[in-house]
Amino acid sequence: MEKIRIGILGYGNLGKGAHLAAAQNPDMKVAGIFTRRDPSSVAPVLPAPVYAESEAERLRGEIDVLLLCGGSATDLPSQGPRFAQLFNTVDSFDTHAAIPDYFAAVDKAAKSGGNASLISVGWDPGLFSLNRVYAQSVLPDGADYTFWGRGVSQGHSDAARRVSGVLDARQYTVPVESAVEAVRRGEMPKLTTRQKHTRLCYVVAEPGADKARIEREIKEMPNYYADYDTTVVFITAEEMARDHSGLPHGGFVIRSGRTGVQRETSHVIEHSLNLGSNPEFTGSVLVAYARAAYRLAKAGSFGAHTVLDVAPALLSPKSGEELRRELL
Amino acid sequence: MEKIRIGILGYGNLGKGAHLAAAQNPDMKVAGIFTRRDPSSVAPVLPAPVYAESEAERLRGEIDVLLLCGGSATDLPSQGPRFAQLFNTVDSFDTHAAIPDYFAAVDKAAKSGGNASLISVGWDPGLFSLNRVYAQSVLPDGADYTFWGRGVSQGHSDAARRVSGVLDARQYTVPVESAVEAVRRGEMPKLTTRQKHTRLCYVVAEPGADKARIEREIKEMPNYYADYDTTVVFITAEEMARDHSGLPHGGFVIRSGRTGVQRETSHVIEHSLNLGSNPEFTGSVLVAYARAAYRLAKAGSFGAHTVLDVAPALLSPKSGEELRRELL
Repeated sequence: MEKIRIGILGYGNLGKGAHLAAAQNPDMKVAGIFTRRDPSSVAPVLPAPVYAESEAERLRGEIDVLLLCGGSATDLPSQGPRFAQLFNTVDSFDTHAAIPDYFAAVDKAAKSGGNASLISVGWDPGLFSLNRVYAQSVLPDGADYTFWGRGVSQGHSDAARRVSGVLDARQYTVPVESAVEAVRRGEMPKLTTRQKHTRLCYVVAEPGADKARIEREIKEMPNYYADYDTTVVFITAEEMARDHSGLPHGGFVIRSGRTGVQRETSHVIEHSLNLGSNPEFTGSVLVAYARAAYRLAKAGSFGAHTVLDVAPALLSPKSGEELRRELL
Repeated sequence: MEKIRIGILGYGNLGKGAHLAAAQNPDMKVAGIFTRRDPSSVAPVLPAPVYAESEAERLRGEIDVLLLCGGSATDLPSQGPRFAQLFNTVDSFDTHAAIPDYFAAVDKAAKSGGNASLISVGWDPGLFSLNRVYAQSVLPDGADYTFWGRGVSQGHSDAARRVSGVLDARQYTVPVESAVEAVRRGEMPKLTTRQKHTRLCYVVAEPGADKARIEREIKEMPNYYADYDTTVVFITAEEMARDHSGLPHGGFVIRSGRTGVQRETSHVIEHSLNLGSNPEFTGSVLVAYARAAYRLAKAGSFGAHTVLDVAPALLSPKSGEELRRELL
């Protein structure tokens, strides 16, 4: 079997997750990891060659699809278009408001390079997005709800760490169970931000720090915490290391809709994820879409695409015949 | 706005559900209902012209997509290929073992007629199928589970009605809650047929009938009941009419998978449906895929397709730009 040769650009949690995922797929091999660090300082989670990022262009002929595993804030806005010119790419760009511009920039670069690029792949945006589109298309008269958690938000954890006197912090986003249940019952409630999620923040404080002030500053922090009911729990560094080292996440996309002559019939479509590791799962989604990017490029479908443009069969190693026989 | 002109062939519960669904979509209109009955005897759920089935070919120029709303046992095996030669079609063919042959026959007819046909559309096969493919592709190391219910199985209800002394019967398929919970916890249990579902059968018996015999004959019926724990409950005709006239259904597709160097990380992907009316929901799915069939035909993608071959964006009335901005 000819294998799809995967490149991984950026080797943080997401890059490692994608590496582990690629190794689970017999039709793929990781042909190169590309890093801005000193390659000799990078220890891959499984055996694979590590190169400096600057070598990527030279090794273009060795890579079928390059997974861009950098962050959306500073890495992808420049990396996306730059590498889409050179490679078929898959990335997890998730700055929602900037997606139209990012799509346009990657589309132009990919078309000019004769490549297929998949942007904003992961679970939200990603699997959650396509479930929103399926559910809205099937039930046009209805309402959508997305709940996140229970899971670790890195952005909120970082924000809490910036409060003076905080040594470490880990923030869990927690969906409000009663709100989820009301949505599941098809009640289509109007929910404020505060009614949908709570925030639970574990904090290791500096010895002698004013915990009441830390708690207040976290709870009142605009954008991150002020619109939510937040619980701050002080723990020791040992407890943090022992109980909060994982990066679990997940959530629910629920659409509730009505049909019938008098709109008398209620239906609920739900998609949920319960993820032991956000980066390992997101890496797994990137890898499945790498197979699609490879096939789109082979078919001459150049330019930028999102998960909404990709038929499910393109993700699977199985043939159309196998899928119809086994999974339809 | 140019509307997609929908034809509906067969006007039972599914045809009516599709009619109601099409009326919810401003980019569609129901241009004709085609029936084998006397057209004057058919009362549409909403205003629409009713024709004899034999007139369909003559009205070919008036219909963009024909929804085949007949049954899989006797109607679709002949109707599918026959009408795929003449129209873009969408059907809900669900005889799993026969799908490869049916696909081939419809594919040949649709290609020869220059039409796009979508077969086996609905929720299972249909939305459940694509969720199985997404989940398997993202988590290749794992196990799939499909649970159906709580909902009415027409086949099992019909089977119970054939028992001597039974005036009416309604069978609910019920997933075993403890099995669903074990799967949700990522335990990947091995489950027998009996461990996944129970059957609950409401029966109206003839006056003076031997209820013990009826109960025994239902519970021991091969294929339908013998492999399950079945509960038979005798009720009156009034109770049947009052409490069991709806056709609710639903179910769960759950994939549990593992990632990590030592397979130490567990993930669970779940898709669930809770449907007030099986035919109204299935009709809604047919209608969303009618939009896709229309677009596939416009793009020259002739032949048979399944939900696995259709990109999510093709189902939505929204443009690519709108979808990226609003739903991604």
